[in-house]
Amino acid sequence: MASSTASEWDLHTAITPAGDGLFDATLDPGWVVGGGVNGGYVLGVVGRTIAETLPTKPHPLSVSASYLSASRPGPAQVSTRVLREGGTVATVAAELGQEGTTRISVLATYADLREMPTDVSTTAVEPALPPLEECVPGSMAPAETRRIAPVMDRFDLRFDPACIGWAMGKPSGNGHIQAWLKMADGHPLDAVGLLMVCDALPPVTFDLGRPGWAPTLALTVHVRAVPEPGWLKVSHRTRNVAGGLFEEDCEVWDPAGRLVAQSRQLAMQPRP
Amino acid sequence: MASSTASEWDLHTAITPAGDGLFDATLDPGWVVGGGVNGGYVLGVVGRTIAETLPTKPHPLSVSASYLSASRPGPAQVSTRVLREGGTVATVAAELGQEGTTRISVLATYADLREMPTDVSTTAVEPALPPLEECVPGSMAPAETRRIAPVMDRFDLRFDPACIGWAMGKPSGNGHIQAWLKMADGHPLDAVGLLMVCDALPPVTFDLGRPGWAPTLALTVHVRAVPEPGWLKVSHRTRNVAGGLFEEDCEVWDPAGRLVAQSRQLAMQPRP
Repeated sequence: MASSTASEWDLHTAITPAGDGLFDATLDPGWVVGGGVNGGYVLGVVGRTIAETLPTKPHPLSVSASYLSASRPGPAQVSTRVLREGGTVATVAAELGQEGTTRISVLATYADLREMPTDVSTTAVEPALPPLEECVPGSMAPAETRRIAPVMDRFDLRFDPACIGWAMGKPSGNGHIQAWLKMADGHPLDAVGLLMVCDALPPVTFDLGRPGWAPTLALTVHVRAVPEPGWLKVSHRTRNVAGGLFEEDCEVWDPAGRLVAQSRQLAMQPRP
Repeated sequence: MASSTASEWDLHTAITPAGDGLFDATLDPGWVVGGGVNGGYVLGVVGRTIAETLPTKPHPLSVSASYLSASRPGPAQVSTRVLREGGTVATVAAELGQEGTTRISVLATYADLREMPTDVSTTAVEPALPPLEECVPGSMAPAETRRIAPVMDRFDLRFDPACIGWAMGKPSGNGHIQAWLKMADGHPLDAVGLLMVCDALPPVTFDLGRPGWAPTLALTVHVRAVPEPGWLKVSHRTRNVAGGLFEEDCEVWDPAGRLVAQSRQLAMQPRP
């Protein structure tokens, strides 16, 4: 039975060994968005499974996922295969499937971030976000939106007012959305949780005046440090909308002012 | 026998079916850099193999590779496994091995770029590069450098003088290298060739005053259009040097002024 101090994230990503490198998981309906389950959450379940199979290398450095079919709430099976383990990093291939159909296929490099050198010379600039009380809470979204996207109830999101015009029918056209993010239950996230954070915000195409579902084809996340507890800053941008596809770059900064995760995904543009 | 009009790139990435989804390749010694073979070239060999197994989807949209061990010149085996094919995209897992040891593992999404919508609304800005004749040819590199990096003879590279201070012992510290690129034999590159171009320049850490080999852990390339023939603009940047690792973002622009490829790799910092 779960401890009363377990976080929602830990409960929703819990897995059970099923033998032969297989694990059973249950995709929680709380992560539904539109016709499927949030892709970052599904990646988090796989990321958790890999972490638990690598006791001395619990942290993802680089995780790449191909999304093959839309995940549904309910039972899922995760398989992992260690391609190489030795030295400071391990490389693992993994898949999550439901009823015999692969949902996502993953290639991952894991290590122990606490044993990495402590040097930092980041030239990236921390996103400028107004104070929390000046930002727009995700809870202000219309009831209809929240009904088709219960995933929004997993987070406390506070959007930068400069990037939320799309919610009022006035997208900026800049291809930029940024927000403060905390889990709704107040629990801090670990390194694996960052895999999910990189896909937590609405598609950046909303800010281009293209609302609608933007199915992810491929997503790569680099995790560079274990985040400090507290509010995270999450920034999504797109710079290349072409050929029916767009790339979405995400940065996650922790309360210590560190760039803890960088991701890039390739997604299909919402249909007009 | 190869036609006299075959490009060096086609010859060096040629594969032979060996049955059961396996292909034989030969890694050409002309791509050696230091103790191994250029990672972009190895990815190109795998990318070519995937393209040849997908007759109606010849173009990579997104390719992610994990680098497990250093490749050597000589025979190699490539295996491919179609994870999903249907609709406009196919997803494939592939591996390249030598003497029973996996060198790289790959997850890829392919399509036919000629059948994608033609809309473009890129906000990315084309790199400003001085005219060719004002740039610094790669052929000016010291003989010793060229001896340990014969890969340099594969390209005609013309470096932006503003980003080549490191070659004279005066790195800018900006983490930025950009150059014009053409194949040395003058042949144009196809979409698969862009997988290689994203790893063709010296490590961007040279511009941070950290010379030396920077082993790639993981590399993801998005190809967004088939490049027009002619000089390509290639730009490498890093924004997050931390934990003994750095990310390297590459953009490739074609002569038509289109952002044809974007990549990001996670690499180990050169040892001081």
